[in-house]
Amino acid sequence: MKIVVLKFGGTSVGTIEKIKKVSRIIGEFRKKKYKVIVVSSAMSGVTNELVKKSRLISENFSENEYDVLVSSGEQMACSLIAGRLINNGFKSRSWLGWQLPIFTYGPHKNSRIYQINKNKIIKYLREGGIPIIAGFQGINKENRITTIGRGGSDASAIMLAKFFKAKRCIIYTDVEGVFTTDPNKLSKAKKIKVISYEEMLEMASLGAKVMQPVSIQDARLNRIDIEVKSSFTNRPGTLITKKSNITKNKIITGISSTHNDSKVTLVGVKDRPGVAASIFKPLSINSINVDMVVQNISANGKETDLTFTIKTDDLNKTKRIIKENKKINFRKILFEKGVSKISIIGVGMITTPGVTFRMFQSLSSKNINIQVISTSEIKISVLINSKDVKKALIVLHKEFKLDK
Amino acid sequence: MKIVVLKFGGTSVGTIEKIKKVSRIIGEFRKKKYKVIVVSSAMSGVTNELVKKSRLISENFSENEYDVLVSSGEQMACSLIAGRLINNGFKSRSWLGWQLPIFTYGPHKNSRIYQINKNKIIKYLREGGIPIIAGFQGINKENRITTIGRGGSDASAIMLAKFFKAKRCIIYTDVEGVFTTDPNKLSKAKKIKVISYEEMLEMASLGAKVMQPVSIQDARLNRIDIEVKSSFTNRPGTLITKKSNITKNKIITGISSTHNDSKVTLVGVKDRPGVAASIFKPLSINSINVDMVVQNISANGKETDLTFTIKTDDLNKTKRIIKENKKINFRKILFEKGVSKISIIGVGMITTPGVTFRMFQSLSSKNINIQVISTSEIKISVLINSKDVKKALIVLHKEFKLDK
Repeated sequence: MKIVVLKFGGTSVGTIEKIKKVSRIIGEFRKKKYKVIVVSSAMSGVTNELVKKSRLISENFSENEYDVLVSSGEQMACSLIAGRLINNGFKSRSWLGWQLPIFTYGPHKNSRIYQINKNKIIKYLREGGIPIIAGFQGINKENRITTIGRGGSDASAIMLAKFFKAKRCIIYTDVEGVFTTDPNKLSKAKKIKVISYEEMLEMASLGAKVMQPVSIQDARLNRIDIEVKSSFTNRPGTLITKKSNITKNKIITGISSTHNDSKVTLVGVKDRPGVAASIFKPLSINSINVDMVVQNISANGKETDLTFTIKTDDLNKTKRIIKENKKINFRKILFEKGVSKISIIGVGMITTPGVTFRMFQSLSSKNINIQVISTSEIKISVLINSKDVKKALIVLHKEFKLDK
Repeated sequence: MKIVVLKFGGTSVGTIEKIKKVSRIIGEFRKKKYKVIVVSSAMSGVTNELVKKSRLISENFSENEYDVLVSSGEQMACSLIAGRLINNGFKSRSWLGWQLPIFTYGPHKNSRIYQINKNKIIKYLREGGIPIIAGFQGINKENRITTIGRGGSDASAIMLAKFFKAKRCIIYTDVEGVFTTDPNKLSKAKKIKVISYEEMLEMASLGAKVMQPVSIQDARLNRIDIEVKSSFTNRPGTLITKKSNITKNKIITGISSTHNDSKVTLVGVKDRPGVAASIFKPLSINSINVDMVVQNISANGKETDLTFTIKTDDLNKTKRIIKENKKINFRKILFEKGVSKISIIGVGMITTPGVTFRMFQSLSSKNINIQVISTSEIKISVLINSKDVKKALIVLHKEFKLDK
């Protein structure tokens, strides 16, 4: 069976008109003789509204009941899409997690799919039906509704693609695909036609809001090709696939940037085992997300300087936590607002020498000062002053030929 | 097990604050060592909003998907109530139709409960849990979600009371109970402490909006005592029970009235079999609700006059349908707006002679003209001019000692 999984995000089904639109997209695929499996998120706004209700009921709302509550959002969206397809003359119906079933393990609010019973859907597809499967939900061994925390409906789509051995998995969203850099920051940004899972993982965690890293990782592990595209246009999107499928590599695939972070430096920290943990543990407990961490080797073997970045919103909280923490010994603490992280990402840099040099030279040519450097196999990140972000994006985008 | 079924209507769970309130009511029953089964409707407004969406998707929205869509409303309400009870320290959880299951037969949107699997709930009650069961929903043989058309969550509550042999079934709503007549029309109206199913059926179909007739009939057939009361006050409500449980009968239990109906008279209708059907069938097809129908015997054996009442909103449609219907032969058609039906109801009238006379004399004493008369075993209805309704209610309420 030539199966394609189509997943629609919350904005793609956000209004009645948009549900009509996605139903047309689904119908067109069906006419191409594909067997179509549809996965839907809740209409945008619905989940937030339900979460808000749960918080008003209890500051510590039961996680079991949370899943019952929020899973109703996908239930509504699926029935509306199925209803529209039926209206348009197709055989269609909604399928909820318990109706297949989709089995999950792990805690409520954060379950993971481990098994999908395919029989009913295979039979239904053979009969010519279009199943509209509720994303984000499943059941556990106790026959209770669960929801898939991270990745949500994307994760549902990828697991369905895996179990049904789908030829394609298309993630419809409100952006046209993955771009070389944020089009809102650089108008010359170009849509990337094809990107590897590994690059996409770096892009995702660096701020490209297209897909959750956990879903990309699921796709990578199961070798599922994903196309990310917009449900509002007919233009092709971005294909996320394995490296070996990508024949023409650019050295750099994309550039990401953060907005207005803050830099914290602890000067003269005692250089002994466990010191980093003693600093970052209380920050983590207080939900402060630490991004870049750089520690130089200790010159005298006794003291070192430790630098890390955080969101500026968390700066005051961070100051307080560090100052109150008597376990940390340091001589001085420095703060700087208005810093940004620029990263260049590309599997091409593994085989191409001199990428680092080209990056630094380009920035230098525009008098952009590099404050901190951090690298991985397919990524180089530098910290610069936020006022230089635009300049940096322009020069790097040009240097690595992403304009074309 | 001493089980009580508590059912909460849409207005009783209409806001977060009201959900907190009903959770307190539930908690108090639990503390009284009752085993409590809760049935909830959707939060008021939610179902209408969902129905509206379905209509925007398709004028002929799939009935199967309609049930998936609207049943999500009860799902949300149940999880919120359970979440609140857990917050308050109770063991509680939501149960959806498919989780028991509650089995239904009949068409989608209008299914009926025929079986409830009790095992899981009994076990849960024994463990000290408070099950919050979604009203209005069940599943059919195909494992699809169904909804219970007429009676809705009330019907769910009554069937649960039946299968679990509950001691009491309390229907919480936004009125304090059943009144001798509409308190908005007559301030002297008194709450009825106890009323028979049969009287309640007449009251319900005559406009007391407390419960759907079909649910009262279910309760009557299964001999389930129902208490209707308000979730907003602590005052006792109205007990609906079998006649033999009611020791002190008043002759008349209640008086109902309609507002601003219209009267249609067909003069000189050919008096032959099938003529009534040929008039009322097209009205029924067009969803026009015909209330009182009176036909006098034919004086000459050939022609008769037929009078019926309808809602004034339907008058123009009715005129058109009758005039376009070539199958009906009549000499003249008369219309009159601004008529109202006054009914006195009471099992007491079976054993008490002279009730009809007392009703007519009372109305006559106030110069109220009776246009049409219709009676059943426990009810006498008359049609009067709408301007006389208030006067009629006052004189009848006093005549039959309902003021006390």
